[in-house]
Amino acid sequence: MDIDGLQQEIANFASERNWEQFHTVKNLVLALVGEAGELASVVQWLEGVDKAFLDSNQDIRQELADELADVFIYLLRISDVSGINLMSAAEEKMKKNSGRYTIEKSFGNSEKQ
Amino acid sequence: MDIDGLQQEIANFASERNWEQFHTVKNLVLALVGEAGELASVVQWLEGVDKAFLDSNQDIRQELADELADVFIYLLRISDVSGINLMSAAEEKMKKNSGRYTIEKSFGNSEKQ
Amino acid sequence: MDIDGLQQEIANFASERNWEQFHTVKNLVLALVGEAGELASVVQWLEGVDKAFLDSNQDIRQELADELADVFIYLLRISDVSGINLMSAAEEKMKKNSGRYTIEKSFGNSEKQ
Amino acid sequence: MDIDGLQQEIANFASERNWEQFHTVKNLVLALVGEAGELASVVQWLEGVDKAFLDSNQDIRQELADELADVFIYLLRISDVSGINLMSAAEEKMKKNSGRYTIEKSFGNSEKQ
Repeated sequence: MDIDGLQQEIANFASERNWEQFHTVKNLVLALVGEAGELASVVQWLEGVDKAFLDSNQDIRQELADELADVFIYLLRISDVSGINLMSAAEEKMKKNSGRYTIEKSFGNSEKQ
Repeated sequence: MDIDGLQQEIANFASERNWEQFHTVKNLVLALVGEAGELASVVQWLEGVDKAFLDSNQDIRQELADELADVFIYLLRISDVSGINLMSAAEEKMKKNSGRYTIEKSFGNSEKQ
Repeated sequence: MDIDGLQQEIANFASERNWEQFHTVKNLVLALVGEAGELASVVQWLEGVDKAFLDSNQDIRQELADELADVFIYLLRISDVSGINLMSAAEEKMKKNSGRYTIEKSFGNSEKQ
Repeated sequence: MDIDGLQQEIANFASERNWEQFHTVKNLVLALVGEAGELASVVQWLEGVDKAFLDSNQDIRQELADELADVFIYLLRISDVSGINLMSAAEEKMKKNSGRYTIEKSFGNSEKQ
């Protein structure tokens, strides 16, 4: 499946359950924030979370995957409802970021520009 | 460009700036949360944000697109650093959701199951 | 009890459980974000949440109170661990806001200044 | 000033600017989330943020204080609009936490109960 197929599946899921009435942009942003909060909860008390750690802790790996997925699902749903193409928006944003965070200015430097 | 290409571009962007040192899972989750907060800020005082509203308010549409993009970029970066395939995680999560939110139980009903 | 007493009670709660090791500023910010996400979840699909609605829906009122409390508890804990006086910080911020959002500029206008 | 005085000051601030029209519970939760996101942004790329670090980095200390203050201001505003007493809600929540996270079960253990 590709990203457009996934977005369509999410739209069908909502439509089949008659959930379109709940899916205003504002409500969906609140739902995304709820999932971002659950993502934060997964890592909040852990130290040294990286690939090796997650390989040794498959239950935490699964929790993390589920929460990343939930944020992604709402991201695609908000994009759909708003008529915004998420892939194009991200490619455009990466171009802006290249201009804003030039290698010269930002090498080894995490400061906001 | 497809989602894997975008994820690679984001990884290159970080690598070229020597930002891998900052990109722990925990730090990236905080960064995603910051972008989710900016997304919330775009809609916080607005009423009736939908496709038609956004067509008539192209500046707000662009702000929304930029914030959705920022969340997506960090989502792909966290997935990369964690060794999690975001598309697969989302497809798997949709399957779980189908079992948890059956049409029978959830038709017209937004309650958490 | 006053706000200083509550902050002390929260500190004792952590100390008695030997939780100080987990309570770095960064971890506590992630925990606050998790609770802010739960707060968002309470209202995400509801319309017309106000005092009258909450009077007629005591279970939702209680959920909302619990999540507001959780955010407050972490706010006091972060302030304590950071050596920041939350009340003073808020009073100082209100003064800044008065200068930034003058009545002249901001009457009936929610725009960020 | 005490917490009730601060809450009243915040209410007056909104009233004087005719902002009550924007201050629905849902909008205020989105605004709180935006401020929690800014709080996350302050610490996202920093390591070892504690009292000593903040004493040596007064500009970051001030940013942190401002963002904690902003979250607190919206917390008090949501409580006011909802008719919830934030101090009482927090005291009640601490009692629940005592039962849920007994010292016996939770000593040195950060797991959710």
